[in-house]
Amino acid sequence: MNRLMQILNFCRLRKGVKSCAVRSLACLFTSTSAMAKSKFEYVRNFEVDDTCLRNCYIVVRLDGRNFHRFAEQHKFTKPNDNRALGLMTRSARSVIEELEDIIIAYGQSDEFSFVFKRTSTWFKRRASKLMTLVASQFSSSYVFHWKDFFGEQPLLYPPGFDGRVVLYPSNRNLKDYLSWRQADCHINNLYNTVFWTLVQKGGLTTVQAEDRLKGTLAADKNEILFSEFDINYNKEPAVNRKGTTLIWEKHDETLITEVMNDKRKEVCGTPRSRKRVQAYHSDIIGEDFWDQHSNILEDDGC
Amino acid sequence: MNRLMQILNFCRLRKGVKSCAVRSLACLFTSTSAMAKSKFEYVRNFEVDDTCLRNCYIVVRLDGRNFHRFAEQHKFTKPNDNRALGLMTRSARSVIEELEDIIIAYGQSDEFSFVFKRTSTWFKRRASKLMTLVASQFSSSYVFHWKDFFGEQPLLYPPGFDGRVVLYPSNRNLKDYLSWRQADCHINNLYNTVFWTLVQKGGLTTVQAEDRLKGTLAADKNEILFSEFDINYNKEPAVNRKGTTLIWEKHDETLITEVMNDKRKEVCGTPRSRKRVQAYHSDIIGEDFWDQHSNILEDDGC
Amino acid sequence: MNRLMQILNFCRLRKGVKSCAVRSLACLFTSTSAMAKSKFEYVRNFEVDDTCLRNCYIVVRLDGRNFHRFAEQHKFTKPNDNRALGLMTRSARSVIEELEDIIIAYGQSDEFSFVFKRTSTWFKRRASKLMTLVASQFSSSYVFHWKDFFGEQPLLYPPGFDGRVVLYPSNRNLKDYLSWRQADCHINNLYNTVFWTLVQKGGLTTVQAEDRLKGTLAADKNEILFSEFDINYNKEPAVNRKGTTLIWEKHDETLITEVMNDKRKEVCGTPRSRKRVQAYHSDIIGEDFWDQHSNILEDDGC
Amino acid sequence: MNRLMQILNFCRLRKGVKSCAVRSLACLFTSTSAMAKSKFEYVRNFEVDDTCLRNCYIVVRLDGRNFHRFAEQHKFTKPNDNRALGLMTRSARSVIEELEDIIIAYGQSDEFSFVFKRTSTWFKRRASKLMTLVASQFSSSYVFHWKDFFGEQPLLYPPGFDGRVVLYPSNRNLKDYLSWRQADCHINNLYNTVFWTLVQKGGLTTVQAEDRLKGTLAADKNEILFSEFDINYNKEPAVNRKGTTLIWEKHDETLITEVMNDKRKEVCGTPRSRKRVQAYHSDIIGEDFWDQHSNILEDDGC
Repeated sequence: MNRLMQILNFCRLRKGVKSCAVRSLACLFTSTSAMAKSKFEYVRNFEVDDTCLRNCYIVVRLDGRNFHRFAEQHKFTKPNDNRALGLMTRSARSVIEELEDIIIAYGQSDEFSFVFKRTSTWFKRRASKLMTLVASQFSSSYVFHWKDFFGEQPLLYPPGFDGRVVLYPSNRNLKDYLSWRQADCHINNLYNTVFWTLVQKGGLTTVQAEDRLKGTLAADKNEILFSEFDINYNKEPAVNRKGTTLIWEKHDETLITEVMNDKRKEVCGTPRSRKRVQAYHSDIIGEDFWDQHSNILEDDGC
Repeated sequence: MNRLMQILNFCRLRKGVKSCAVRSLACLFTSTSAMAKSKFEYVRNFEVDDTCLRNCYIVVRLDGRNFHRFAEQHKFTKPNDNRALGLMTRSARSVIEELEDIIIAYGQSDEFSFVFKRTSTWFKRRASKLMTLVASQFSSSYVFHWKDFFGEQPLLYPPGFDGRVVLYPSNRNLKDYLSWRQADCHINNLYNTVFWTLVQKGGLTTVQAEDRLKGTLAADKNEILFSEFDINYNKEPAVNRKGTTLIWEKHDETLITEVMNDKRKEVCGTPRSRKRVQAYHSDIIGEDFWDQHSNILEDDGC
Repeated sequence: MNRLMQILNFCRLRKGVKSCAVRSLACLFTSTSAMAKSKFEYVRNFEVDDTCLRNCYIVVRLDGRNFHRFAEQHKFTKPNDNRALGLMTRSARSVIEELEDIIIAYGQSDEFSFVFKRTSTWFKRRASKLMTLVASQFSSSYVFHWKDFFGEQPLLYPPGFDGRVVLYPSNRNLKDYLSWRQADCHINNLYNTVFWTLVQKGGLTTVQAEDRLKGTLAADKNEILFSEFDINYNKEPAVNRKGTTLIWEKHDETLITEVMNDKRKEVCGTPRSRKRVQAYHSDIIGEDFWDQHSNILEDDGC
Repeated sequence: MNRLMQILNFCRLRKGVKSCAVRSLACLFTSTSAMAKSKFEYVRNFEVDDTCLRNCYIVVRLDGRNFHRFAEQHKFTKPNDNRALGLMTRSARSVIEELEDIIIAYGQSDEFSFVFKRTSTWFKRRASKLMTLVASQFSSSYVFHWKDFFGEQPLLYPPGFDGRVVLYPSNRNLKDYLSWRQADCHINNLYNTVFWTLVQKGGLTTVQAEDRLKGTLAADKNEILFSEFDINYNKEPAVNRKGTTLIWEKHDETLITEVMNDKRKEVCGTPRSRKRVQAYHSDIIGEDFWDQHSNILEDDGC
């Protein structure tokens, strides 16, 4: 009886909206909380399907949010901070290992791109699931592994990374995407290398260095480094010039087990093959890398 | 001369695809890295616009990935672990404070929903940006603040949260969405409370407890708690029964400053109004909450 | 046996693609045409869901393709051809009558907008179905009814109309959309009226008329018409100034039937209410029209 | 003065909504119709971008709406009406000729699929434009050409066709799509041929014929036709068994012109190459057709 009163009160509260066609259940039948819930469940229908087109590579790219400020506040060295790059790569490795179907990832500076295989059906290829899981796993790993790279230097606040999804229908398109990111890495790193050399070794102010580089081409920048500072840019660390490519690789190992054989302990070695994530700092614009790792991409003819 | 050779070699490598209409630039003109990059830039056109429809509330909901396992491995207490709930709320607060235009958030168990105002233009309303930034900020905060809630108990691995975006065109739809989540909280918490009481205080196995509850209604569960264990469910902690609602609230405070006035130190108090994120564990299904916080939602008539 | 040969031959033809993961069935099991079909059915999964967000008005707008040329080739009178406008309206009426859930339509010049009610579930709210059916029904009607408006003047070729879908979450947004189209009608018709009056009655060339109107405001154009040609623009036909609004209206009629009563024929009149499509050439920017037809729009509060 | 009054009145009418953030312009500045229009133009931002993913084939498929009823009302012969099929093909030809970038089309029964080339940029690859233009052009052509196929038999009402867009990233996917439609044609036509033979020649009722065919395989149906009615299904008209494939083909012709040469009329023949739409009723499931028309599809390697 008391409960009926509650129901009626509840109905009265909702009075005036009952006639709306989009809301499916009348108050009369809402006598339990389970029913109350079902009354609201129509809101699920507002979710839209964001399934990625089949037979396309799914690329999720993350970019650090306000990382210029983040780098300054955490005193990243210029032009490259190897601790920061190492932490990015460590977080990317965590993404690849924890999530499914990522066949290759490429990172440079404060960005990382993850490529899901074209036939993946993980999370039904729902774009929102894929990109948020990548962003989430990367971000929690970044904080989790911070001290492995920065030691006692504290992380001042939790950083953010935004993400996006892009689909590529052909191997050519995907390789061109990765080439685009590596060309971006090259251009930025060459610039930053000369800029900070002019400042740190050449004694220029940042404004003077900027002026000096205005309008220069790649060759000019190489020349400045070489003739003025005796630096051969091509001998700079590959991780900075080429960024980091992560792929799965098969790896043979021997599993050591101890067995009791006729009361005598025996050591057995069982060979087995495992795959693990391997890092490269190679050129991925030319075809060599792809020829040497021909199992990464599936045939276009599918 | 040497460079020309390189270019020609490069072109030769790419031979056979030059005729593809979708790739815009011929090799002939690719004489610098900047040009090399521009050759690949067509891949940007594969990004699609995912702008959220204007004048709709944008809801981003996060759900813990494999949190059943995560809770076991981190020994979360049953039926609710207040440290874990506190950490969820702390992370949500970080999201609201760091991102723009979130007007209300609601969380329970391992999920949290964030509502952007219907007129927000943050990140041009791009769904991918909004949901990945929420997922990222929440996840990095979760790890960052872990020790504030779990103290010396270590976080064993970085957790993941998946996200989704849903649009709601009217205030009624949005309130019904939040009511749906709170009704879900109620149903689950009532069940879990009885279940774990039967196990922890009643001495049943989990299988027995499950059997006992099969087919019971809300009233039956209330009755078990009351008659067998002297527990009035409605007096259980509101945070568990109602979940957590976070909103911005204006707050008057006095800014204390010390001034030197004629060589004498004077203490000044300047009143000022600041807004801060406030947590509620109230019912948000009825209209009371909305009447008391009438500035949260914008008028439907816009 | 012969059939097995065929199957094997068929398989051989497809050889080389069998290993592709995206294609689901091996040749071995493809022994009938039904099975052959099922082998290809995976292609259905490439269709994407384009359901329109719930609780929003769905507007489909059609625009004539190359209608400038079409008008010239069919010698449409300037500035308005009432036969052409009548045919547009006739075709729109056909769309409203043949399709479901259209509550209002507005047309002017070579465009027509159709509004589906916000709670429509017709064709599961699939955008592609709604817009193609509108475009198709309108276009076939346009040709079908041509001779009712143009008599013996032949239609030279079948015309095309392109379409688009736009969603509006609130009544205010929808009314503003319709106001936008009517304001467009007003601006164009005022311009065209003055322009062709200058040419047809004022003896100017089209180039001279264009020059004369450059930079003029609405008031200036009204003034030219009034002082030079004694035309009060506000007395021009409403169909041209305001366009055409089509809505459903209840209409009382008497159904006449003849019955044999005791061998005497009796005529019976049964009153009944039917709804039919009614055309208006009124202002729909102000609130009067909406106040007078308050049943067109559903309440925003849903 | 009078006009100012109007403006103020207008503003008063709109009072109460001015504060809405989504509506951009205050009434104060709305002094001309051009300004009135600009006040509403914010509604354009509710349109969403529906650009088709690059480097994918864009397929638009049309299906007759309620064509079962349409066929009965227009007394289509069973199992196939060649007038109706001819009109479908004529309308499809009109679509291919009037629109851009369609490389192949395939039709059977009351459906037709149109394939835009993967690199098409027509209408910026906007899905809504492509599918509505196909639906519109097809429908207006259907009515326009009706009498060429049905002569004096009148078209009773304008028919409707719904459409959809599907993207295919690879040549394999596209061919499998077309194979799927042709396999569908085969299955339906075999069934219909036997069914109507049983009825028309075998004297069965439609219910009896249906029962007779329940559970039969392709071979059984072939057998019924052959042993009971002396019909070799493979010798039935290809248009019915295979449907209609339309492609562009180069065609050499001689342009005949008459010239006056030294007061004597001379007839000149200038050879020229034109492309025109050619119809095939061939198998498109096997590779032969594609080998013979290798210029239809672009290379996957792009």
